[in-house]
Amino acid sequence: MGSIERIQHVARKVAATARAGNQVVVVVSAMSGETDRLLKLAGQISQRPRDREIDVLLATGEQVAIALLALALRELGEECRSFLGHQVNIVTDSVHGSARIRTIDASPVQDCLARGEVVVVAGFQGADQNGNITTLGRGGSDLSAVAMAAAVQADACEIYSDVDGIYTTDPNVCPKARRIDRISCEEMLELASLGAKVLQARSVEFALKYKVAICCKSTFVDGPGSWVLPELDGEQGGEMLAGLEGAVVTGVACDKNTARVSVTRMPDRPSAAAELFAPLAADAVNVDVIVQTAPQDGFCDLSFTVPKVSARRTVELLEMRRHSLGFGEVRVDDQVAKVSIVGAGMRSQPGVALQCFQALGQAGINLQLISTSEIKISVVVPEHMADLAVRVLHDAFELDKPAGDRSLR
Amino acid sequence: MGSIERIQHVARKVAATARAGNQVVVVVSAMSGETDRLLKLAGQISQRPRDREIDVLLATGEQVAIALLALALRELGEECRSFLGHQVNIVTDSVHGSARIRTIDASPVQDCLARGEVVVVAGFQGADQNGNITTLGRGGSDLSAVAMAAAVQADACEIYSDVDGIYTTDPNVCPKARRIDRISCEEMLELASLGAKVLQARSVEFALKYKVAICCKSTFVDGPGSWVLPELDGEQGGEMLAGLEGAVVTGVACDKNTARVSVTRMPDRPSAAAELFAPLAADAVNVDVIVQTAPQDGFCDLSFTVPKVSARRTVELLEMRRHSLGFGEVRVDDQVAKVSIVGAGMRSQPGVALQCFQALGQAGINLQLISTSEIKISVVVPEHMADLAVRVLHDAFELDKPAGDRSLR
Repeated sequence: MGSIERIQHVARKVAATARAGNQVVVVVSAMSGETDRLLKLAGQISQRPRDREIDVLLATGEQVAIALLALALRELGEECRSFLGHQVNIVTDSVHGSARIRTIDASPVQDCLARGEVVVVAGFQGADQNGNITTLGRGGSDLSAVAMAAAVQADACEIYSDVDGIYTTDPNVCPKARRIDRISCEEMLELASLGAKVLQARSVEFALKYKVAICCKSTFVDGPGSWVLPELDGEQGGEMLAGLEGAVVTGVACDKNTARVSVTRMPDRPSAAAELFAPLAADAVNVDVIVQTAPQDGFCDLSFTVPKVSARRTVELLEMRRHSLGFGEVRVDDQVAKVSIVGAGMRSQPGVALQCFQALGQAGINLQLISTSEIKISVVVPEHMADLAVRVLHDAFELDKPAGDRSLR
Repeated sequence: MGSIERIQHVARKVAATARAGNQVVVVVSAMSGETDRLLKLAGQISQRPRDREIDVLLATGEQVAIALLALALRELGEECRSFLGHQVNIVTDSVHGSARIRTIDASPVQDCLARGEVVVVAGFQGADQNGNITTLGRGGSDLSAVAMAAAVQADACEIYSDVDGIYTTDPNVCPKARRIDRISCEEMLELASLGAKVLQARSVEFALKYKVAICCKSTFVDGPGSWVLPELDGEQGGEMLAGLEGAVVTGVACDKNTARVSVTRMPDRPSAAAELFAPLAADAVNVDVIVQTAPQDGFCDLSFTVPKVSARRTVELLEMRRHSLGFGEVRVDDQVAKVSIVGAGMRSQPGVALQCFQALGQAGINLQLISTSEIKISVVVPEHMADLAVRVLHDAFELDKPAGDRSLR
């Protein structure tokens, strides 16, 4: 939520939803800029990493927001009640700054709903089993919303932001990008880099696990939004996902925060890969696409991607072990990007990878690494060609058209 | 607490106290201006009176402050932990905006103290028995401090503000005003208008009831402060209050928010006063000094004071009942002030009232009403003479001298 005007706007939306006969639980994030303001105050005092006291501090952002929204709702004549995380028994572990929700006892919320009241819940926060305030990390309010929806067995969890849904790709890169009507949680997780601003991966994982139907909508523009659905099969799912099931590729994602690391002449023995990645895992380097060449003369080459910030550290860690691991050399290229196509329909559709590689090849885009999963194909390309690759793939799979109108089905 | 600098200043003070071997519980109010900022946000949305949601909103002010103070203490190497009102089980009634403390279970605080940690508690807030956040009203943080001191059986409750103690009278009115070393809670209550900025009456009442010794000090200037003590007699009290016991008058208070109402020719029957004041009480008009003349010919005159804002309403309420009450007329004068001298020593010292009236008379100050209690003498004087009356009384009882050096003892 932004300004006072935005709070009043949200209140009108909530009141209209309630008057249409719905029981409504609103989960609220802090007013925009508030979290940064609080962190700045803390930064003037201490540079230590986030912990218990920072959570006490940050939790006030949502507390202010729920109080103001409740006031605004009452001005509109709606009976309502605000709740802090601990007041609706959102019990988390004790990892301050990125706590995980363990349990929710939503009975106080149920009581209010039964009385016909609108319930306003502070997102982003909970309390551990000793009553210490915890926060859930970036995007934590989305997670709170999905968790509350699961706890009260809501029909749907609508998540409002400043965009009106999930797009087939980033509209800034590809003007033909189209809003997706329905997408599965699985696909959404693979498309994380597309939906990062709209929906955090943790929220989607939670929705998948607890069968919550999410609808991503715009706070400002009325529209159908994008449904993110936990189930692809089954009676209800089948009906809802008719449009989706017709599509082979659902979206194109691009991650420019990628560096490629190559290790040459790695001795080909069973434990080679494990020995190579163990020190990186111990240092919390997030290794992504991994490709190993077929061994030749007892040696193989091995490439993988890491986040750009981790590139230098990765090289250091490996160089320290060059002797014991016995490889030739380490090379790094941080001018690369990872472009992915995602679609649950790939499972039953052969030839998608080939079509992907052909399209990129015809556009003169060199593929440095390739990695595929059941519902995703990722390629690593030179960074300056990444946007072009996104547009080429978006065109090749006709993502600008509704799924039913595409030639490749 | 004011700015970040002030928080760091408070942290240094607290750390020094802890390092001197004390177990320390710090009760914190919001950063200056924060409560007003929050009320202004609420005011942009709703004009309704304070209630549950406003308490949720305002409680964030102290929450921010405890988190920042805890961070600052840790930067100084002090182990510490912050607590919200409900986390230290400050249970109140449900009167939002001015809740009264019912119970405190300070065991979480005791646990921390036992581990050698400094405890930082959010003032001004608690929670009712259903877990709803409540606030204690203006000066509520002082009350929280006194209540916490009682709960942990602290040796003393130090209350810091921007003045260095309680003065014999307002130094702005009387430059000879002197800081009082020791004053009893009873006297302090009578002197409320002197100490209003330093200490709220409710805190003093609480201290009296639960035997908490308060010391009012300045955040910025080191000094002995003023002790406000619950007990005047007894072994320990006797020793500590040696200086105080020698004094007849402890301080002079002045309340300019006063209007005088006079009712003439009131029929002299037993229930007259009750009938007159009943409608005022029902309308929550705060009636103070009441003086009734001796009846003559079956009638008496009756005067009393009310706050200036209530003057017009009081006249309205009485005029509506003129017929049934049968009095002559109602007159009001809102250009008056109430000046009081207070001192526990008056109990055993005759002639104080006479000396008071003589001093004022010699200065040409006309007394409109007089009211006395065991430890207080109040006079109502023309408002433009109030400051002069304060100086005359301050001089007459030699309040600029330490109690032991005064001629009248």
